[in-house]
Amino acid sequence: MHLVVVGGSDAGISAGLRARQLDPSAEVTLVVADAYPNFSICGIPYYISGDVVDWRNLAHRTRADLEVAGLTLRLDTRATRIDHDRRELAVTEADGATARIGYDALVVGTGAVPVRPPIVGLTGPDALGETDGVHLLHTMGETFALQRALARGPATALIVGAGYIGLEMAEALTARGIRVTQVEQLPEVLPTVDPELGALVHDELTRHGVDVVTGATVTQISRTANGLSVAGTTSTGSIEWDVDLVLVVVGVRPDTALLTAAGVKTGARGAVLVDDTMATSLPGVWAAGDCVITHHRQLGESYLPLGTTAHKQGRVAGANAVGSHARFHGSLGTQVVKVFDLVIARTGLRDHEAQARGHQPITVTSSPDDHKAYYPTAYPITIRLTGDATTGLLLGAQLVGWLGTEVSKRVDTYAAALHHQMTVAEISDLDLSYTPPLGSPWDAVQLAAQAWESQVATLPADPAPRRLRPVH
Amino acid sequence: MHLVVVGGSDAGISAGLRARQLDPSAEVTLVVADAYPNFSICGIPYYISGDVVDWRNLAHRTRADLEVAGLTLRLDTRATRIDHDRRELAVTEADGATARIGYDALVVGTGAVPVRPPIVGLTGPDALGETDGVHLLHTMGETFALQRALARGPATALIVGAGYIGLEMAEALTARGIRVTQVEQLPEVLPTVDPELGALVHDELTRHGVDVVTGATVTQISRTANGLSVAGTTSTGSIEWDVDLVLVVVGVRPDTALLTAAGVKTGARGAVLVDDTMATSLPGVWAAGDCVITHHRQLGESYLPLGTTAHKQGRVAGANAVGSHARFHGSLGTQVVKVFDLVIARTGLRDHEAQARGHQPITVTSSPDDHKAYYPTAYPITIRLTGDATTGLLLGAQLVGWLGTEVSKRVDTYAAALHHQMTVAEISDLDLSYTPPLGSPWDAVQLAAQAWESQVATLPADPAPRRLRPVH
Repeated sequence: MHLVVVGGSDAGISAGLRARQLDPSAEVTLVVADAYPNFSICGIPYYISGDVVDWRNLAHRTRADLEVAGLTLRLDTRATRIDHDRRELAVTEADGATARIGYDALVVGTGAVPVRPPIVGLTGPDALGETDGVHLLHTMGETFALQRALARGPATALIVGAGYIGLEMAEALTARGIRVTQVEQLPEVLPTVDPELGALVHDELTRHGVDVVTGATVTQISRTANGLSVAGTTSTGSIEWDVDLVLVVVGVRPDTALLTAAGVKTGARGAVLVDDTMATSLPGVWAAGDCVITHHRQLGESYLPLGTTAHKQGRVAGANAVGSHARFHGSLGTQVVKVFDLVIARTGLRDHEAQARGHQPITVTSSPDDHKAYYPTAYPITIRLTGDATTGLLLGAQLVGWLGTEVSKRVDTYAAALHHQMTVAEISDLDLSYTPPLGSPWDAVQLAAQAWESQVATLPADPAPRRLRPVH
Repeated sequence: MHLVVVGGSDAGISAGLRARQLDPSAEVTLVVADAYPNFSICGIPYYISGDVVDWRNLAHRTRADLEVAGLTLRLDTRATRIDHDRRELAVTEADGATARIGYDALVVGTGAVPVRPPIVGLTGPDALGETDGVHLLHTMGETFALQRALARGPATALIVGAGYIGLEMAEALTARGIRVTQVEQLPEVLPTVDPELGALVHDELTRHGVDVVTGATVTQISRTANGLSVAGTTSTGSIEWDVDLVLVVVGVRPDTALLTAAGVKTGARGAVLVDDTMATSLPGVWAAGDCVITHHRQLGESYLPLGTTAHKQGRVAGANAVGSHARFHGSLGTQVVKVFDLVIARTGLRDHEAQARGHQPITVTSSPDDHKAYYPTAYPITIRLTGDATTGLLLGAQLVGWLGTEVSKRVDTYAAALHHQMTVAEISDLDLSYTPPLGSPWDAVQLAAQAWESQVATLPADPAPRRLRPVH
C-alpha cells in the first residue's frame, strides 16, 4: 500500500504520521513544494521578532524525526497534476525534472496562499515585490526575504491588515525597533471578535507605539527615491504614508489548483468539498487543512483555515487513507492570539452569526477577576458570552485578558461546553478547579455564565425580539 | 416566607444570596457563629504569608454587601438546637442570651472542624493550645491567634500534615522567614495525587528550604524551657524536633452536631445525608457544604469538603428552600494547589480508585510542553491520565507544572470531558485554542490523551489484567 501525501505542512504531515502509526506496513511518500517540511507557519512572527533565534527551531519535527517515523520525503518537489485514472501524481523537481509517482491512496494538503488585495502596485506584471520592500508572509521563503529586508535596517513599516498575523507582526516589528503603522479596512482591529473587544486590542497596540489606522483602505503602493509611498482612502478623504517597508497580510485563500484540475468539487470560498472522513469527490483522494472546507459544528460548511483544524483533519485523512475509520468532528472556530501583553480568544458564534442561524442570541459582557482579588496581581478578564434566550444554549464566548490570566485555557472550557451543547446555566454545574492565586470558587468562566443568566432573567417573558444591545 | 440559614461561610452565604435572587420577597436571616461572615478560608495562608496585607480583604463580600443583597445577619450567634416541630431555631448570642428564631425553611451550612489527631499533648484537659505555640487553623479566630504567635518572631515551625493547607502553610511560613519542618505520615506529600507527582512537590519544598519528613507519625508534643518538643516515629525508629511553633493541619471532619441532634440521617464519614436537591431527611431542612456528604459523579456518596462544592451546594439549597427546583450535579473532586512555583491539579479518579470501582484503569504519564518549545520559556507539564482500557473512557487526570503553565485551567478541560463521559480518544476531537506562546496545535491536554492511546494500543488484545505499572 503506497500513500502519497501532497503538502508538508500541518495537514500533510499529520496525515502521513497517522497513516504510519495505524499501518506501519504502509509506504508513505510526502511531496513537499519547498525545503521546509513541518514548519510552524504560526511561529513565523516569533522568528521575525527575535524570540526564536534559529529558524530551524520553527520545525515541529526535524527531517530526521519524520524519516524515523517512516515518511519518505521528496522536498522541493511540486505536484503538478493528478492522473486519477492511472493513480499517478505528476511532479516537477527543483531542477525542472519531471516524474510520476504511483499511489494507492492520495492525501492532498496544499494549504492556502496569501490574498493579494486589489492595490495598485501589488498586481500585474510590474507588481512590487520583496526587492522593493513589499512583502507577503506565508512561506519560509517569504520569511527569509523579510528577514533579509529587516537586516537592511528599515526605520518604518506599514502593515496592511489587522487580523491575527497582522497584529502578531505589529508586535514583532515593534520588537525589532521599527515604527509600525497598521492599517485596517474595517472599523476596528481584529475583526474576528466584537468591536468592543477589538478596541481593547487597539489600545494595547497604541500603548506600545503602533500607529493604528482603522476604516482606511490602502489603494496604491509605489516606490519613491527613499522607500515606499502608500496611499489610501478613509471616510473623510485620502491619506498617505512614506515608509521603508510594507507588509500585506489580509488573509488567505485555499490553494486548490491541483485538486480542481482533477475534477474535485468545491464549496465555500472555493475550498475543496470533503465529507467528515475528509474524502473528496474523487474516490481514493482525501484532502485536509487550509485547502478544504471545514465542517463547523454550529455553522455547517465554512472556510476556516486554522492550524488546529489542519492537524485534526490531516490525522483523520491519514487514518482513512490506510483503511481506518476516522471522522472529523467539526470545528468551533476556537482561536487565540497574543498581542503584546494582551490575550484574546474566542470560540463558537458571535451575536450576528448566531442571529443569521436563526437563534435568539443575547450577548452579555462581564469582567470577572482571573483569581481572587485579595491575592496579588488579580486582573479582570473581559468576557462576552453569547447564548440563546429561548433555549438557554451557550452559543459562543469571547475573552480578553492580560497575559497570565489563563484566557487561552479558559476559552477551552467554553469550547468543551459548546462541543457538548451545554446551556449557559449548566456551565455552573462544571466542577472546575480553584485556588485563590489562580481562580475563584466560581471560576471566571462560570461567573460570566451567571452574569448572562442574571441579565436574561430581567428580560420580558415573551422572547422575540429579545435583544440587549445592538448587533454589530 | 422566612428562610433561616445557619453558617456564614461558602455554603450558607451562597444559599442566602441565591434565595434572595430567586425570591426577592423572601426574608433571609443568617446565623453566623463568629464575626466573620463570608470570609475565604482558602485565603488564610495568603494572609499569613503576607500576600494579603489586610485581613478584611479575605472577605468575599463585606457585611454591607450582604445586607444590600437583603440578608439579615446575626453575627456571634451560635445555633444550639433545631426545634423542628415548631419550626424554630434556638440560638445563643455572644453575651450568653438565648433566643428562638422561627423559620419556614432552614438551610444548614455548619461546615467542618479541624481533626485533632491522637497526639499526646494535643488532647485531654491539659491539651496544649495557642498560648503554648500549638495551632490549628480553620477559623479567623485561629488565624488571628497564629498571626499573634508569629509576631513574637518564632525561628522554627513544625507542620503536622502535608495536604493542601499544610503545603500552603509551609510556603507561607517560609515567606515569613521561618525555618519549616513538614511531617507527613504517608510515604509522600500531597497524598491526594499519585506519589510520582507528590515527589515533584517534595522536591519543590526542599528547593525552598523546607525540611520534609515523610513516613513519620507525630506521637507527642510537649513544652520545653525554650519552646516545644515534638516526638515521632518512623519505620526505622524515633525522631524528635525542637521548634518554636507547631501547626496541626491534618484535615477536617463534618460539623454535624446541630443536625444530628435534630435527627437527620448521616452517611459517609458521618456527614449529613442529602439528596441532589440538598434536602436532608427532615422536611423543610436543607444542608450544604463541608457538613454534608457529596455526590461524586464517579464514586457516588463521598465526603469531599471543597469550597467550590460548598458554593454549588449552597446555591442549590438556597434555590430549593424558596420553592425553586435546582439540583446539585455532583463533584469530580477537581482540585488545584500552588506550592511555591509549582501548580498541582487533579480531577476524577486515580488508578486505585478506578480499580476499586470495577474499572480496568490504565494510567499513562507524559510530559508535553505548555506551549511550542520554540517560543521562549516553554516548560513540560507532567500529566498522568487514567482511562479505562476496556471502554476507553477517561477516568481522571493529574497535572503538575510550573506556575504560568496554565495547569489550573487545563485540568478544567479534563473536568468538562469527565462531566460528559468522554473517552480519552474523543479529547482529541475538542476544538481547543492555539497560539505558539500559549499552546500547541494539539494542546498538552490532547497530547497526553494521545500518549495514553498509543500506550494502550501496544497492550495485548485480551484486557484482563491490563496494567502498565503497579497501582499505588
